[in-house]
Amino acid sequence: MELSTIYAPVQEDLSRVEDRLRSVHKVDFPHLSELLEYSLKSNGKRIRPALTLLSGKFYNYDLDYLLPMATGVEVMHTATLVHDDAIDNSLVRRGRSTINELWGEDEAVLLGDYLFAEAGALIASTNNLRVIKQFAATLKTISGGEINQAFYAFNLEQSRLQYFRRVASKTASLFSMATESGAVLSQAPEESIQILIEYGYNLGIAFQIVDDILDFIGTEEELGKPVGSDLAQGTLTLPSIFIVERYPEDNPVKRLFNNRDRKDEIKLAIELVRNSSIAQECYQVASDFCVKACRNLKLLPDNDSRQSLMELADYIISRTK
Amino acid sequence: MELSTIYAPVQEDLSRVEDRLRSVHKVDFPHLSELLEYSLKSNGKRIRPALTLLSGKFYNYDLDYLLPMATGVEVMHTATLVHDDAIDNSLVRRGRSTINELWGEDEAVLLGDYLFAEAGALIASTNNLRVIKQFAATLKTISGGEINQAFYAFNLEQSRLQYFRRVASKTASLFSMATESGAVLSQAPEESIQILIEYGYNLGIAFQIVDDILDFIGTEEELGKPVGSDLAQGTLTLPSIFIVERYPEDNPVKRLFNNRDRKDEIKLAIELVRNSSIAQECYQVASDFCVKACRNLKLLPDNDSRQSLMELADYIISRTK
Repeated sequence: MELSTIYAPVQEDLSRVEDRLRSVHKVDFPHLSELLEYSLKSNGKRIRPALTLLSGKFYNYDLDYLLPMATGVEVMHTATLVHDDAIDNSLVRRGRSTINELWGEDEAVLLGDYLFAEAGALIASTNNLRVIKQFAATLKTISGGEINQAFYAFNLEQSRLQYFRRVASKTASLFSMATESGAVLSQAPEESIQILIEYGYNLGIAFQIVDDILDFIGTEEELGKPVGSDLAQGTLTLPSIFIVERYPEDNPVKRLFNNRDRKDEIKLAIELVRNSSIAQECYQVASDFCVKACRNLKLLPDNDSRQSLMELADYIISRTK
Repeated sequence: MELSTIYAPVQEDLSRVEDRLRSVHKVDFPHLSELLEYSLKSNGKRIRPALTLLSGKFYNYDLDYLLPMATGVEVMHTATLVHDDAIDNSLVRRGRSTINELWGEDEAVLLGDYLFAEAGALIASTNNLRVIKQFAATLKTISGGEINQAFYAFNLEQSRLQYFRRVASKTASLFSMATESGAVLSQAPEESIQILIEYGYNLGIAFQIVDDILDFIGTEEELGKPVGSDLAQGTLTLPSIFIVERYPEDNPVKRLFNNRDRKDEIKLAIELVRNSSIAQECYQVASDFCVKACRNLKLLPDNDSRQSLMELADYIISRTK
């Protein structure tokens, strides 16, 4: 199923989010404007703002609050990508050169700061203290999780539990902020808010697991960036953990982590995941999180958006980019 | 006059701010805790939290709001320093190794992000939408100003006006946020809030001008970092602008900006500022901003804190570090 079909209940308002994103880069200083335009005009899937809008569809759907919130969520996501790319020295994302590649790491750091501030300003404009506090808490969780990931780079001693915690910090926290804020700003009752938090959180974990699988089995063209990026950064993801668990004595991940220059080990690890049941087993884990995400959705009012949230869970597993 | 004397009306509460800062680094993940402790336990002057507390002394001085606010202002300031040092590749600040020097630039970027989020969380805990929005707006102003500064590095074509705008963005905005928030959270009437905004803003400009003078006439021991750092970064400050204005045909700043390898030009520029009236003339500009800062303070209720704000303006000019 196509994303545009899934987004149908909020498609028109998602284009309003695009308008808002364009207004972010209307600033006096031309160089800053150029940086903002480039970073926000990406080929992203806009899943997070779609989650906010869809989650806002069950009670009082008020665009005065939901539009700045959905825009703020996407701006915040963009800020984390700009900083991640700078830190990882990534040259390409979604098929385009990164900010750090085009303008240098220093400008990427400052642009990311500006984008975090802009996200804060957009979210503060909802005047809702709960979502404002959730924004600050989520940013703490994400950056704390990234520090953790950097600390454990090239460290083989990481359990699945640590992996899931890391994924929860860096991806699920923002997904659940997206759904929670949509629910809160549409004045959903607390039980419905909790159902949508549970949905966003588990969907986020599934989404990240699939991202991590695609880093092994995708193509550079589909991914818009080199395959095997995670291993090159020393980041142990679920497929790598499966390799280490299955071949504890000797395996390409272990050899790579012990000698970072042996880049051919990345190719061997990719082949191992592709030519074994590991990819499929990882997909099963992701699917389980999607089931968990959706298990209480049926308690929400029955409408198109509920259907879309169900379909989005399927899409997340079947996507190739 | 000593800072401790000036801070007397809020000295006890400033030590409560220190307690709050210590609680910031009580987190589960030991490595993050270590980074937070190191960055927040600095030898800084704590001027910004003092400004918030002193500005809160004229009406309803309520520590439930003023303490998290003052702490948040200092955490936000720390975040900007951590990112600035990473971007400038500074090795030393306040006589101690920087985060980027000890743990690398990547960790410095992530730690700065975490600190921005923590500042946001502290400020959001005041439940006051006006100061929350001011926080986001100030962070936009600061990072936008830093992007501007990076863009104009090693560019001689900068007017005094551009310099004052840059100083307003990177320093005065946070000083005025510190004073505004103290006033707002103590339920000051709008006229008093405006007087304290004007005070913080102009004091901040004066503070930065003096910082920029000290970068020429101070000693490495007093500054806790190398002399001439601004010129080394290609940042044109007021003393350099005076040099360029006075000797338009040929001067060490021009020679340095045209050939960044000629580091001996920095020494010549420093000598030029020290052995001419330039330093004194720059101090006069800073003093004028201090006069502007204080001109309406007499309209506030007469108390110890008002006296302290007056004295702080004198201190800022006479300080040597």
